[in-house]
Amino acid sequence: MTEIGIGIIGGGYMGKAHAAAYGSVGTLFDTALRPRLEMVCAASEVSAAKYQKAFGFARGTADWRVLVHDPKVEAVIIASPQDTHREIALAAFALGKPVFCEKPLGATLADSIAMTEAANASGAINMVGFNYIRTPAAQYARQLVAEGRIGDVTWFRGEHTEDFFADPALPATWRCQGMGNGTMGDLAPHMINGARALIGPITALCAQVETVHAKRGNMDVTNDDQAQFMCRFENGAQGHLFFSRIATGRKMGYAYEIHGTKGAIQFDQEDQNALHLYTMDGPEAERGFRKILTGPAHPDYLPFCQGPGHGTGYQDQIIIEAKDFLTAIATNTNIWPTFEEGLEVNRVVTAAIASSEKQTWVNVSDY
Amino acid sequence: MTEIGIGIIGGGYMGKAHAAAYGSVGTLFDTALRPRLEMVCAASEVSAAKYQKAFGFARGTADWRVLVHDPKVEAVIIASPQDTHREIALAAFALGKPVFCEKPLGATLADSIAMTEAANASGAINMVGFNYIRTPAAQYARQLVAEGRIGDVTWFRGEHTEDFFADPALPATWRCQGMGNGTMGDLAPHMINGARALIGPITALCAQVETVHAKRGNMDVTNDDQAQFMCRFENGAQGHLFFSRIATGRKMGYAYEIHGTKGAIQFDQEDQNALHLYTMDGPEAERGFRKILTGPAHPDYLPFCQGPGHGTGYQDQIIIEAKDFLTAIATNTNIWPTFEEGLEVNRVVTAAIASSEKQTWVNVSDY
Amino acid sequence: MTEIGIGIIGGGYMGKAHAAAYGSVGTLFDTALRPRLEMVCAASEVSAAKYQKAFGFARGTADWRVLVHDPKVEAVIIASPQDTHREIALAAFALGKPVFCEKPLGATLADSIAMTEAANASGAINMVGFNYIRTPAAQYARQLVAEGRIGDVTWFRGEHTEDFFADPALPATWRCQGMGNGTMGDLAPHMINGARALIGPITALCAQVETVHAKRGNMDVTNDDQAQFMCRFENGAQGHLFFSRIATGRKMGYAYEIHGTKGAIQFDQEDQNALHLYTMDGPEAERGFRKILTGPAHPDYLPFCQGPGHGTGYQDQIIIEAKDFLTAIATNTNIWPTFEEGLEVNRVVTAAIASSEKQTWVNVSDY
Amino acid sequence: MTEIGIGIIGGGYMGKAHAAAYGSVGTLFDTALRPRLEMVCAASEVSAAKYQKAFGFARGTADWRVLVHDPKVEAVIIASPQDTHREIALAAFALGKPVFCEKPLGATLADSIAMTEAANASGAINMVGFNYIRTPAAQYARQLVAEGRIGDVTWFRGEHTEDFFADPALPATWRCQGMGNGTMGDLAPHMINGARALIGPITALCAQVETVHAKRGNMDVTNDDQAQFMCRFENGAQGHLFFSRIATGRKMGYAYEIHGTKGAIQFDQEDQNALHLYTMDGPEAERGFRKILTGPAHPDYLPFCQGPGHGTGYQDQIIIEAKDFLTAIATNTNIWPTFEEGLEVNRVVTAAIASSEKQTWVNVSDY
Repeated sequence: MTEIGIGIIGGGYMGKAHAAAYGSVGTLFDTALRPRLEMVCAASEVSAAKYQKAFGFARGTADWRVLVHDPKVEAVIIASPQDTHREIALAAFALGKPVFCEKPLGATLADSIAMTEAANASGAINMVGFNYIRTPAAQYARQLVAEGRIGDVTWFRGEHTEDFFADPALPATWRCQGMGNGTMGDLAPHMINGARALIGPITALCAQVETVHAKRGNMDVTNDDQAQFMCRFENGAQGHLFFSRIATGRKMGYAYEIHGTKGAIQFDQEDQNALHLYTMDGPEAERGFRKILTGPAHPDYLPFCQGPGHGTGYQDQIIIEAKDFLTAIATNTNIWPTFEEGLEVNRVVTAAIASSEKQTWVNVSDY
Repeated sequence: MTEIGIGIIGGGYMGKAHAAAYGSVGTLFDTALRPRLEMVCAASEVSAAKYQKAFGFARGTADWRVLVHDPKVEAVIIASPQDTHREIALAAFALGKPVFCEKPLGATLADSIAMTEAANASGAINMVGFNYIRTPAAQYARQLVAEGRIGDVTWFRGEHTEDFFADPALPATWRCQGMGNGTMGDLAPHMINGARALIGPITALCAQVETVHAKRGNMDVTNDDQAQFMCRFENGAQGHLFFSRIATGRKMGYAYEIHGTKGAIQFDQEDQNALHLYTMDGPEAERGFRKILTGPAHPDYLPFCQGPGHGTGYQDQIIIEAKDFLTAIATNTNIWPTFEEGLEVNRVVTAAIASSEKQTWVNVSDY
Repeated sequence: MTEIGIGIIGGGYMGKAHAAAYGSVGTLFDTALRPRLEMVCAASEVSAAKYQKAFGFARGTADWRVLVHDPKVEAVIIASPQDTHREIALAAFALGKPVFCEKPLGATLADSIAMTEAANASGAINMVGFNYIRTPAAQYARQLVAEGRIGDVTWFRGEHTEDFFADPALPATWRCQGMGNGTMGDLAPHMINGARALIGPITALCAQVETVHAKRGNMDVTNDDQAQFMCRFENGAQGHLFFSRIATGRKMGYAYEIHGTKGAIQFDQEDQNALHLYTMDGPEAERGFRKILTGPAHPDYLPFCQGPGHGTGYQDQIIIEAKDFLTAIATNTNIWPTFEEGLEVNRVVTAAIASSEKQTWVNVSDY
Repeated sequence: MTEIGIGIIGGGYMGKAHAAAYGSVGTLFDTALRPRLEMVCAASEVSAAKYQKAFGFARGTADWRVLVHDPKVEAVIIASPQDTHREIALAAFALGKPVFCEKPLGATLADSIAMTEAANASGAINMVGFNYIRTPAAQYARQLVAEGRIGDVTWFRGEHTEDFFADPALPATWRCQGMGNGTMGDLAPHMINGARALIGPITALCAQVETVHAKRGNMDVTNDDQAQFMCRFENGAQGHLFFSRIATGRKMGYAYEIHGTKGAIQFDQEDQNALHLYTMDGPEAERGFRKILTGPAHPDYLPFCQGPGHGTGYQDQIIIEAKDFLTAIATNTNIWPTFEEGLEVNRVVTAAIASSEKQTWVNVSDY
């Protein structure tokens, strides 16, 4: 088996998640390439040394350029702050190296455009970290919709809701500044990606974006606490998306329901191993939403467990991402979601913010 | 105990429900007035005779005027088609008789205004049949919100979804013609009433109303299959309401969730005996939505059963309405929801339809 | 329509429930006989007068013999304490009058035997009040099993659990004395009846019956707080039943699950309008328990509501009983569950208590 | 950080799971020892080479003695068939090496006794692979019970149910032969361990063990398809355990409910990230089972994810086991569950089989 040197930029939450994923992905999945944790980049030499040791990397650095240019780093994972994504990605693509970038892709729409153009120009493998669409349940839901199992989709409702800022007494943090750290910037991309994956492109929308708690302690909150938009999908379906970081009681409310002319689907990430499917088959008296537990019959489940219902978790989503990224590199064929998807998600976010400011419907393609 | 003669106009679905309710309400509740099923009015003499016998009325008639003017009919229940509501109600109020009117109040906003003015001018007891807000769970939810148990409300999401027209192959019926029979006319009033009861007045909204299946067989469908609106409540909360008769898999999807600064509430009429409450009390590790089963500790439950969790059903909501109507008459004091509420709900419906046509936000008070 | 005079003995919880049921059953269902609330019997003249008025009876009495012998009382409902059941029933059967008796049938096995013999000898209509097996969901579950939809049954687990005595600090009441008021006497009959209805006769069992809190205040508790037994059904299936009045958190835990060679069923009375069905049909990836909401496609639902998912409640079970009792009388044909069923349930209770004392398996037919 | 060489015996399902776990445990948790995948042992040289490569081990062997005696193998994981456990463990303990053994500990009670004696005599670290009791939810449930949050336990019901043999038409496999591969041998140990962990020792029981489908194709099935026992715990609580491999619809039905004098707990592994807690705190009207989603406030969750509700899965349980094993070695202090626990579980299994044969209650300590 061929090894591949992995470089991860960012030693925080997501950097650690990716490091752990690359530590076991080669054992769980039958990947063509076996990852080697080559180098980690962190904000300082001290923290780089700390993460190198803690995560099991061969080397550490405080300079992402060193990592990107190191010949033994053959694939780059960007898990650093949003405003660094563009520069790093462009440098890696200039060297023809594969890049996996955490969401959101760019800090601005312009960044996302530049990054996508660079990716496409380089021909290098590129991928964006929309992990929730990778669960066995989400992949299977996507397949059911694509195969017409629920007929023509007439309605999609999605949300990404958490409650980490629900208590108005909580002090402000860095998350309270900058559109990229608000609900639209931080949470919305996941569900917009989900909506696009399941239903297709969003063509028009009308949004309402708001800061509910404008002050935390003495500090102003300058980004949004909750946001919603009504929308129209390219295939004609109507929809609604909602995002909140003040959704009291919701911990990981990445949830959706889809109505079709032959069936319906419901999903909630808080019970990520269950998918609820309703179909119009059989006698009326026997119809109901069935709670399908993920198992070996569903995508990317078997490598984690032979038995159905035993369940996968958050970290397993990152492992599936790692598997897909390694497969894309090994086969030199991009696997969805690429930077193009990250860009389109960013476009919807941009359109929604504009719609809210204008208090009117907008066409997404105008952004 | 004093008896009161009840006259019911309409022998269909709701007429029967009210007749049955008045047959047992006096036994279940300790009502000051004991109802006597005096007269039923139906579309023809034949059907009037049929309903008189089937429902146990003393007399039947095919002329609502006869019923309204009969001296032994001391309270009038209007359960006939929407376009008859106004004329009947006005006649009853002219005689000073109490009127219970099924929702929606008037077939048009003008009708609702006229009916409410007549009700107020007469000083007679008046009530509208929003039954879903009468369940023990709904009443308790209202109480929790009113008492500040979940703090300041920041978000409300409501829906009234059913799937009786989900299959595009179903032939058209009378329900496919006339705005009053579409989703906005037929289903929306319940949840708009619910939203107002729980959160308060809706001041502005932006709606999207649509006919998804424009043809059924050879017949045109001229009213809406599904509709949604984003809104702002008077207390500042943001909201979203959705209504559908093509919500595949949903049978009685009168459901809502409310986020507050101290807690949250979730409810779904499909499991009407459970209310889900989350509060920020106690240690983080022990927090979660608790599934409260209705019981004697909740409003209007005990008369149905001494034990908690034994449950009430659809017909019991109608019985609670009957109890409230009798109580209002006995005490000569209106009990919410009166015609005023029916009018305000109608105003929101009218504003939403206008908003959808204009593709813009509207102020409800402009309608 | 022919009227029938109803006499109810007992003005308490169940007496009221039956009185209310007879007040609306004729309207909700198309019964051949229309009930007339003729006479109620209570413990004293004062309470008889109170219940007569409160429940809408024509007359009241403190002497059950007066009620039974009154010629205008054409059907007798026994809702008085257990130890009165035998004498009343025998008197009524001697007059050839139909009798509906609340569960448990007799205070002792001997009583149940005598009552059943009298019923059979008289040829009069007889019925026992096992209300939980009357819900649309329970009736449908029974039908599914009977039709082989889940194949051969291999396992049945049932429970009837409540928590009204869960707190050891609660003072003793009359419920703490007498086997008939303990868990085996009061709660077990419902689920034993359910098990028999769904699976068939229980042939052998091994039980454990216990008083967990032997003292409440200064008073001894002389009956059981919880009990369980393992059993074998006549059809070969294995089973387990559990009963408790100290099942903290459970309010109406009449619940069961059934495993068959082709499917499975789960039900919990706390969500009485849902039945969970799993079948081995279709692709593995789509299998799961489906939550079927009761509706017009299920037994005895339509008279309560035209729409599925709108739900029935506790009081509606009593109404269905009333309908069945009236139908049995009108057609002069017994409808299950008759006194025979009450007797067989009593036999299982007796066998279980004996098994627990002996600490061994017993054959039910030996009791 | 000090490295430790890991040797895994068995390349199948569990061997792979452990190999993957040791690949990421050092990154996810801050373990004192960093594992190095030193050697894997499989049934043949060919398969050893295959697993060495697939799982990322330095070396492979077909002889477990080579692995156990290799000086670079500093800790031994036994994931080979049950009848090999004893010999391997004894050899490792003879060298003073730490041993992690998959459940069930020994193929027989005698094996388990011998293994536990050897473990204790050697003073080496020893642990048994009861993974389900390691989830954040299970650990937290254990803590709640231990701290008296639900008061004195009065009832425990547990089950481990799956449906992999529910279809009688499925052909026999090796799983249909040998008590160790039946329900009591294969599934029961997990839930017996769970019951002991949550409530304490089981002192007496009465069991019913049965082969439901005695033939599969032409082959006899010689072990049990389902089994149950009633029991008494040392602390006085009553209980019931059920195990089945023919529990149609159940995929990972490791589930329990616990009643206490102050609260109750419900858990089902099919939704492993939720724990349901009921307490008698607060007003009656607000009481209900609360669905607690696991998060950083619960044991061993935070290393997998910073956000609550994001969830852990099956593989994460194995990682937590690896963390505990490494911690035990590093601190030279055994961490529960040790071989003693494996032995006690085996004793309960043995007692249950004897009880079923004798058709009587037995004392566990007699076995």
